Amino acid sequence: MDISEKLFAIEEIKQLKGRYFRLMDTKQWDALRSVFCDDATFDARASLSIDGAGESGRAAESNDWVYQGGDNIIAFIRGAIGNSRTIHHGHCHEVEILADDEACGVIAMEDQILTEDGSVLTLHGCGHYHETYRRVNGAWRIHTSRITRLQVNLG
Amino acid sequence: MDISEKLFAIEEIKQLKGRYFRLMDTKQWDALRSVFCDDATFDARASLSIDGAGESGRAAESNDWVYQGGDNIIAFIRGAIGNSRTIHHGHCHEVEILADDEACGVIAMEDQILTEDGSVLTLHGCGHYHETYRRVNGAWRIHTSRITRLQVNLG
Amino acid sequence: MDISEKLFAIEEIKQLKGRYFRLMDTKQWDALRSVFCDDATFDARASLSIDGAGESGRAAESNDWVYQGGDNIIAFIRGAIGNSRTIHHGHCHEVEILADDEACGVIAMEDQILTEDGSVLTLHGCGHYHETYRRVNGAWRIHTSRITRLQVNLG
Repeated sequence: MDISEKLFAIEEIKQLKGRYFRLMDTKQWDALRSVFCDDATFDARASLSIDGAGESGRAAESNDWVYQGGDNIIAFIRGAIGNSRTIHHGHCHEVEILADDEACGVIAMEDQILTEDGSVLTLHGCGHYHETYRRVNGAWRIHTSRITRLQVNLG
Repeated sequence: MDISEKLFAIEEIKQLKGRYFRLMDTKQWDALRSVFCDDATFDARASLSIDGAGESGRAAESNDWVYQGGDNIIAFIRGAIGNSRTIHHGHCHEVEILADDEACGVIAMEDQILTEDGSVLTLHGCGHYHETYRRVNGAWRIHTSRITRLQVNLG
Repeated sequence: MDISEKLFAIEEIKQLKGRYFRLMDTKQWDALRSVFCDDATFDARASLSIDGAGESGRAAESNDWVYQGGDNIIAFIRGAIGNSRTIHHGHCHEVEILADDEACGVIAMEDQILTEDGSVLTLHGCGHYHETYRRVNGAWRIHTSRITRLQVNLG
């Protein structure tokens, strides 16, 4: 890949992650499916990335939420937040192209989960997604995604 | 446009939106005018993008805030937030170049409006801008902008 | 620089700032050192960018936090937040390439500082970094960084 192709791939991967956030928060589940590879892995255990963090930060650590396969990942996400109002924001996506069809990246995030009527904030956290991407039939998709957390508060 | 020109246009449009947020929050109204086309449309009705959302989410829906023309848009924005302290953040701008001088995009946002002394948060919302852009005399500008909301709280 | 080289430099500078936030929040101090030039300046006085802002906004203004040199900057940052839990987010980085190895930029930010156990939010602010960058031995680094604030609350 020349420099322009590399930059274009980086831009496509940034937009891929933009769609991930937007399609999740607007509950477009079928379209959300297309951001993941068929053999994707999603690790939502959300272990803390800072030693010594307190109880509020460790809240999500007891979960064992690792999902294999694009369909299972979407089923998990729908089960977790299907009827909740959610807001996910991504910040400063750092993408590295590793090969013609392989890339990795880290993106900071903030996530909020509210009750269906928006009246109660049940989860408010910040952290990072650590990801790998693959280009399949010309379209970049998320191949692996692992969440680490700086902070999480449960309402 | 070749791939580099397309990427450059995408970058220019991202910076255009960066200026929109920054010039608004630092109250540089004359400079803010220049991010809009003369015949721009700004639809701030902020209808919710999720069915079944509750009262707090629907709060802004009763407004009929659609403004035509760059000058009217700036007058509206100044009237709405001129003396308030505001913080607007944009996330994961997805830009698509449609033609040499035409583009469209979606960007996630969070907006906060506080009283002049910053002591009371009067509005705190999240949502998306759905926009089109035009290149006029070599400079990209916002041609149409429509807000949808995931959530809004009025203080 | 041609258009592709310019875009690549912009992307490298955006990733530089992404590392700045991420390495600070994950407390990787040695790696954080590498984002700054040896002769960098960091102006953290955080004066408000809006006239007439109230007391909560002016809280940080009495500090005289200007640091010279990459080592001193890291020592200052470690001293200020070494044991605290922190979350820093950057938004809409506007980067301009001025010469082959010189650039400037503005990036919106939100910063949160919490106690070590994450239970109390001691500072929550928003504002902008106004920066210059230099390419040293092929790697972009922050040469000068100055914070302005839209809002800050001390807990």
